[in-house]
Amino acid sequence: MRLAVVGAGSWGSAVAWLLGNNGHQVCIWARDAELVSVLNREGKNPRYLSEVQMPPSVKGNAELAQALDGAEAVVLATPSVAARQTGVALAAFIGKDSARPALPLLLLSKGIEHESGKLLLDVLAEELGAPERLAVLSGPNHAEEVARGLLSATVVAARSPEVAALFQTALSNANFRVYTAADTTGVQLCGAAKNVIAIAAGVAAGLGLGDNSAAMLMTRGLAEISRLAVALGGEQQTCMGLAGMGDLIVTCTSHFSRNRSFGEELARGGTLEAYMQRTHMVVEGAVACRSLPLLAQGAGIEMPISEHVRAVVWEGREVQAMLASLLERPAKPEFY
Amino acid sequence: MRLAVVGAGSWGSAVAWLLGNNGHQVCIWARDAELVSVLNREGKNPRYLSEVQMPPSVKGNAELAQALDGAEAVVLATPSVAARQTGVALAAFIGKDSARPALPLLLLSKGIEHESGKLLLDVLAEELGAPERLAVLSGPNHAEEVARGLLSATVVAARSPEVAALFQTALSNANFRVYTAADTTGVQLCGAAKNVIAIAAGVAAGLGLGDNSAAMLMTRGLAEISRLAVALGGEQQTCMGLAGMGDLIVTCTSHFSRNRSFGEELARGGTLEAYMQRTHMVVEGAVACRSLPLLAQGAGIEMPISEHVRAVVWEGREVQAMLASLLERPAKPEFY
Repeated sequence: MRLAVVGAGSWGSAVAWLLGNNGHQVCIWARDAELVSVLNREGKNPRYLSEVQMPPSVKGNAELAQALDGAEAVVLATPSVAARQTGVALAAFIGKDSARPALPLLLLSKGIEHESGKLLLDVLAEELGAPERLAVLSGPNHAEEVARGLLSATVVAARSPEVAALFQTALSNANFRVYTAADTTGVQLCGAAKNVIAIAAGVAAGLGLGDNSAAMLMTRGLAEISRLAVALGGEQQTCMGLAGMGDLIVTCTSHFSRNRSFGEELARGGTLEAYMQRTHMVVEGAVACRSLPLLAQGAGIEMPISEHVRAVVWEGREVQAMLASLLERPAKPEFY
Repeated sequence: MRLAVVGAGSWGSAVAWLLGNNGHQVCIWARDAELVSVLNREGKNPRYLSEVQMPPSVKGNAELAQALDGAEAVVLATPSVAARQTGVALAAFIGKDSARPALPLLLLSKGIEHESGKLLLDVLAEELGAPERLAVLSGPNHAEEVARGLLSATVVAARSPEVAALFQTALSNANFRVYTAADTTGVQLCGAAKNVIAIAAGVAAGLGLGDNSAAMLMTRGLAEISRLAVALGGEQQTCMGLAGMGDLIVTCTSHFSRNRSFGEELARGGTLEAYMQRTHMVVEGAVACRSLPLLAQGAGIEMPISEHVRAVVWEGREVQAMLASLLERPAKPEFY
């Protein structure tokens, strides 16, 4: 099968590597012509996962039209803030008025559009039409491990079982297990919201609070994510799965997680601005924590951890004050 | 309030410390008169958490009748294999035909009675009667951290909201958050079954499989625990909570976890016998993995991870063969 991977960050590159090793023809689109040129010459992405050797079936192209040429499916791996802009750019080639209005598309990005509070598949559906050909992938999948061939599992969710099965088949191999689901809302919301909890877990680790409190934060974090997912039409069960609990655990515990390491820096008195200047990385959780409390408010539910993370990141609240205020909440029956 | 804590292992000692610091009068019962004598002389348990200084309100007694004298509630912290035997011993003092047939009792032990496949509160109810006064506590609570005053949260489940509230009030403080629940079956089953998954997580860590696969094992592990909990009358939601996901995470990831470290030893070719000889510790997961597959079979559900752990621990199956066989299972829709 021939696939286009739009976006050449860590995760896009790892998925391109995976698809190429599964025997597919892959063209990665990247804006940066120099990156594409190195990729095509040396088989390595010079900026992300730069140690990973791509199979010969993976090529790069800086022209979107050419990258999409002949593709039987598209994988979208741009940063979440670029989702609408990417949708607009893709519309000419695979939008509802284009020659390929039903081309299957798999979204890898995780986030919420800040301006609208919309999940990214909804943003893409607005720009591209034909929402039934859209799918989303999420799970405990650090790119660094997947691209080393280490065992991982993930979820592909789509309205259409056929679209889910298409991407399941393309991506699966002995070391990458792909489960299918229909709950695109739950999968997306978990993917966006876990980054916020990972910031809180990083704060707790930075304060030396220990393993018990880390597990408490993950569990209570998933409880609030789950409340929102259900309020928005998702399924609680999804939150218990690989895209929910699984991804949350890996994001909160792994030393690969930039959201967690940003939280640790907050505990040492750091700021978002300083962290981004130093690392040149987007902290997805810092973006998402602005949208989530608004969505929660709209749905009439409580997300205390996310709200406190927002206050620390965006209003300069002290982490100690955040912790004290969280702990002042009475312990109720566990689920309410 | 005056409480008796029956059992002076790590967790019993930590809970006694907690209750004592919350202003309660606590008497710890231990069979070992020498341990009791050191505890009363120096305020320290010489065998478990031996660095922890007990408050003066915590005393020890090697006579069960004296330890229970005047107690308004009992906390049970003996190893899970001793549950029935402890129930029999307690019956004379707090059983249905005794002078205190309704004394509230909080169970800290986690396990399944191997011979009968029964949960421990059911075993206690058989020996003591009055099941409505029984409660169980479970959550992500490594004793070492709780007894250092580090932040933790837990669940107390009881049929009776009053009994749950009594223990919630006795145990709660700023650093130990106690949530209540009614699902004693789910809380107990999660507590017993997570130790088996922790062995699997230790095996995976020992084989160098990485963070993604650890999260996968925890998530798929909770999925199979959840199937059994629901089949036995528990609630899926409990499995998402502190006694389910929370405790599973801490047991699978923490370096304090003996079930996990036993799994790591299995990956290096070790055996249960050798591990127990070396550490003098009961590996609760090795006990539970004999009962769980039987319960699952009886309920007509699949628990592939637990079944594979059982085969490795009790039938000397190679860990590599276990892994290969698990990975041969087709990836289905995520929940079935």
